[in-house]
Amino acid sequence: MSEILSDIEIASQVEPKPIKDVAQSLGIAEEDLSLYGNYKAKIEVDPSSFDDAEGKLILVTAITPTAAGEGKTTTSVGLADALTHIGKKAAVAVREPSLGPVFGVKGGATGGGHAQVIPMEDINLHFTGDFHAIGAANNLLAALIDNHIHQGNALNIDPRNITWKRVVDMNDRQLREIVNGLGKRANGFTRQDGYDIVVASEVMAALCLANDIADLKEKIGRIIIGYNYEGQPVTAHDLKAEGAMTALLKDAIKPNLVQTLEHTPAFIHGGPFANIAHGCNSILATKLALKYGDYAVTEGGFGADLGAEKFIDIKCRQAGIKPSAVVLVATVRALKLHGGVDKKELSTENVQAVKDGLPNLLRHIDNIQNVYGLPLVVAINKFPTDTQAELDAVEEAVKEYDVEVVLSDVWAKGGAGGADLAEKVVELAEKPNNFSFVYDDDDSIEDKLNKIVQKVYRGNKAVLTKAAKKQLKKFEDMGLSHLPICMAKTQYSFSDDASLLSAPTDFDVTIRELKVSAGAGFIVALTGNVMTMPGLPKVPAAEKIDIDADGNITGLF
Amino acid sequence: MSEILSDIEIASQVEPKPIKDVAQSLGIAEEDLSLYGNYKAKIEVDPSSFDDAEGKLILVTAITPTAAGEGKTTTSVGLADALTHIGKKAAVAVREPSLGPVFGVKGGATGGGHAQVIPMEDINLHFTGDFHAIGAANNLLAALIDNHIHQGNALNIDPRNITWKRVVDMNDRQLREIVNGLGKRANGFTRQDGYDIVVASEVMAALCLANDIADLKEKIGRIIIGYNYEGQPVTAHDLKAEGAMTALLKDAIKPNLVQTLEHTPAFIHGGPFANIAHGCNSILATKLALKYGDYAVTEGGFGADLGAEKFIDIKCRQAGIKPSAVVLVATVRALKLHGGVDKKELSTENVQAVKDGLPNLLRHIDNIQNVYGLPLVVAINKFPTDTQAELDAVEEAVKEYDVEVVLSDVWAKGGAGGADLAEKVVELAEKPNNFSFVYDDDDSIEDKLNKIVQKVYRGNKAVLTKAAKKQLKKFEDMGLSHLPICMAKTQYSFSDDASLLSAPTDFDVTIRELKVSAGAGFIVALTGNVMTMPGLPKVPAAEKIDIDADGNITGLF
Repeated sequence: MSEILSDIEIASQVEPKPIKDVAQSLGIAEEDLSLYGNYKAKIEVDPSSFDDAEGKLILVTAITPTAAGEGKTTTSVGLADALTHIGKKAAVAVREPSLGPVFGVKGGATGGGHAQVIPMEDINLHFTGDFHAIGAANNLLAALIDNHIHQGNALNIDPRNITWKRVVDMNDRQLREIVNGLGKRANGFTRQDGYDIVVASEVMAALCLANDIADLKEKIGRIIIGYNYEGQPVTAHDLKAEGAMTALLKDAIKPNLVQTLEHTPAFIHGGPFANIAHGCNSILATKLALKYGDYAVTEGGFGADLGAEKFIDIKCRQAGIKPSAVVLVATVRALKLHGGVDKKELSTENVQAVKDGLPNLLRHIDNIQNVYGLPLVVAINKFPTDTQAELDAVEEAVKEYDVEVVLSDVWAKGGAGGADLAEKVVELAEKPNNFSFVYDDDDSIEDKLNKIVQKVYRGNKAVLTKAAKKQLKKFEDMGLSHLPICMAKTQYSFSDDASLLSAPTDFDVTIRELKVSAGAGFIVALTGNVMTMPGLPKVPAAEKIDIDADGNITGLF
Repeated sequence: MSEILSDIEIASQVEPKPIKDVAQSLGIAEEDLSLYGNYKAKIEVDPSSFDDAEGKLILVTAITPTAAGEGKTTTSVGLADALTHIGKKAAVAVREPSLGPVFGVKGGATGGGHAQVIPMEDINLHFTGDFHAIGAANNLLAALIDNHIHQGNALNIDPRNITWKRVVDMNDRQLREIVNGLGKRANGFTRQDGYDIVVASEVMAALCLANDIADLKEKIGRIIIGYNYEGQPVTAHDLKAEGAMTALLKDAIKPNLVQTLEHTPAFIHGGPFANIAHGCNSILATKLALKYGDYAVTEGGFGADLGAEKFIDIKCRQAGIKPSAVVLVATVRALKLHGGVDKKELSTENVQAVKDGLPNLLRHIDNIQNVYGLPLVVAINKFPTDTQAELDAVEEAVKEYDVEVVLSDVWAKGGAGGADLAEKVVELAEKPNNFSFVYDDDDSIEDKLNKIVQKVYRGNKAVLTKAAKKQLKKFEDMGLSHLPICMAKTQYSFSDDASLLSAPTDFDVTIRELKVSAGAGFIVALTGNVMTMPGLPKVPAAEKIDIDADGNITGLF
């Protein structure tokens, strides 16, 4: 009987290649690397050379998430290994993990089983310092705002209307709502404030959507930090902050190169929230993967209604790139949950529950084919409890879309377990496609919202609250209508009600609040409360993390 | 007429050597380096090999600081270059700069003129991420404390008696005093709190006093975060925090290697406050410089009454190292200030003022020779306005101590400008010395305080306030009497009154408060308020910092 190893145990059994050899396998010269130890590097290639990239972009997305988990990152990493396995030159581009979940519940975020990126301890802890740099830039702006007010407030900033928050890369509920500037006069003006986690910072989103450092500085200058007493926006540029903030980001903007367990190059860079931001790794990392790989595998956050839509309408639009094929990840277990089965019954065969959950998969397929206009394959991330009858039910259902279902076993077998998937992806990527955005830049904000709700979610319409309507009017007056929309909606349903599984119909989506991220370049539409500062659980993962006298870390998973 | 160049302009004219060549010049093999780009590296040498180090340790300290500045770091860097210049194998070990001053008033902290360490932009910004890692470890502990209380408070922590603060590497007065845990139940328990700057974190002091990673983990476990309702201390170990915190510091504990403008190896590592902490770079960096250099130049914070005393009684004691010679830095301008001259009159010759300020210099000389038991040379950091008559007055006065005065011109000329100083240091380091601590481990806390006040400051006695006496009794009951003392006193006077310049006599030193840093391993004696979170000035340096499209930074100085 073989023992099941933890992710860190599997990872520690693999001897990584020197990162300069990994870079060389892609054709990146040693002088274009800035090494961070032997197994991590930043890439120093001039972004202006990215525009002639000829690689095929493969987007990995998923059905509507459930508690069962889908394994999107694991599939992305494994697919890149599988493409390498079948003789293609491939690279994967994914997000950097945040320290918050590492010390909280979730543990690391570097794939799983035999489809991981390494060195996982480093990637899960500080990696190359990008998130700390983003935090420092964010908090420098915050300090400059309060200092400006303290020193006479020439810009007439209304302290009751400052939207810029401080951040920390930690799950720290105690900081969600605070009052600062207490004590004596020298401590500033007392005001209500609060902290977000670093991944929720607009600086994170701006960095991930920047095409080069000049673009980043411009974006940062456009950040709206709040409003003056006349209700006019005040920007980071007004505070002369963008130069120093961008200087703090001079290295953070450069993509990081590491490797998978099978030594496939992995660009891990940036990690914006998938709700109030667009949830993708940086444009620069994706472009690097496209420039040096024949196949660049990347992913969007959450399901294909949210992550893929934002990937297309926000990231691809800003980057001027387009996918050649899509991998839609599903599990039999998750389909059963959409079919109404209890979480405890997932290991029992239940073909009817699979059938009942399939409308969720089919709607995502239809969206990818007919709304986004892209060819796709369904990858079933394999579990030992899946039965042939259940798998047959999936295959049967997707026939009407002329879509293939391929089993992926990269968690257990690495790249070899994804060879069929890789072959199919290569075939699809050669097909012509009808890639299109869900809405146009010059649609009105309301039209953009309705197009997303109607075309992608299949709801009746977007209903704006009175407050949201007021905000919409304000953003129109500020000349921001051209910005794309970033939907902050529950990831657990096509609708704005997390309890409506599978493929709900006949619903409205209520937009409770609109916010602008003028620096990152999108308008956030919130359908409910979004938690931007998580808390730690009763027994934090931190309690189990340890390091011995030789520097070996245990308890990361 | 030659133009005066800024520090960053001088620095940018020098082509740095690849850091692996700098390491090789010391005998450090490439496989013992972890590169951070081509010009920075962490040293991976096992600390257990440091005990056979045979280098001579040279401590650079100064007279009592004045507004005129003394140039201690510049002299330290220049002396290492000068030792190299005269054919010796030398290295310098100094502190890392904090981002706070970089964006505030002071600018960078990497030496000046032709005696600087490079790459100065990197060192002044994130460097290798050490301070961010220290901040993250500090803030993880803070999150674990509040989470523990929120999740049921099994340790019975008294929220009114939590001494552990959160930190950020920023001058941000708005965070000095805050209330957190506001809002709904899920946001934790509301309490008063506050932030310090990262360099004031006890984690910083503990890291700088650790002899290896196991020692660091033990120190962190001993950190007292506050007290329970019974008044008993609660530690980081009680919260099971030390494993994860130390894991976060796995790279931060490794010293960083960079180079001076003349390619002399420079170990830049750690930077604890010089008031509430001991103000020296890490033990490990100093030991590395001693192992690989025949001469290891390092410095203490502030003047020789504070920085050198703490260097000896805290750092040397903990590290098991001792200096071979001391360089006491003074300027003619600073002596004039001690002599009572107005700041605006410093450029006018005034021999009498120099003579009036000399008692400050002489008391420091006497302390170094007769209290610390070490041979020394006085280095006059040269200014164009110094006259021969003024310099003669200094030379004449120090004769009675059999001490030489050497002019140092490293700011203008680099190592060549410090050749005489280097020759003298080499000569002194061969002399036998009577190195001794100011007090013994097993002296009582009160005896330790009195020995420092009487032997070093030359005051009458240490007078404890009622509150301090109560704290003293508590620490004795907690079995902490064996810890050394860390004096937090004004750096501008031998006394606790900043206005008493030169060499005041017949004064008491009032100890207003005692605090314990049980993790770092010292008891802090505060004679007044210490600012542990600076603020930004009216026009922050950040406003002038910029970066161009090619990544070149301007405005750092």
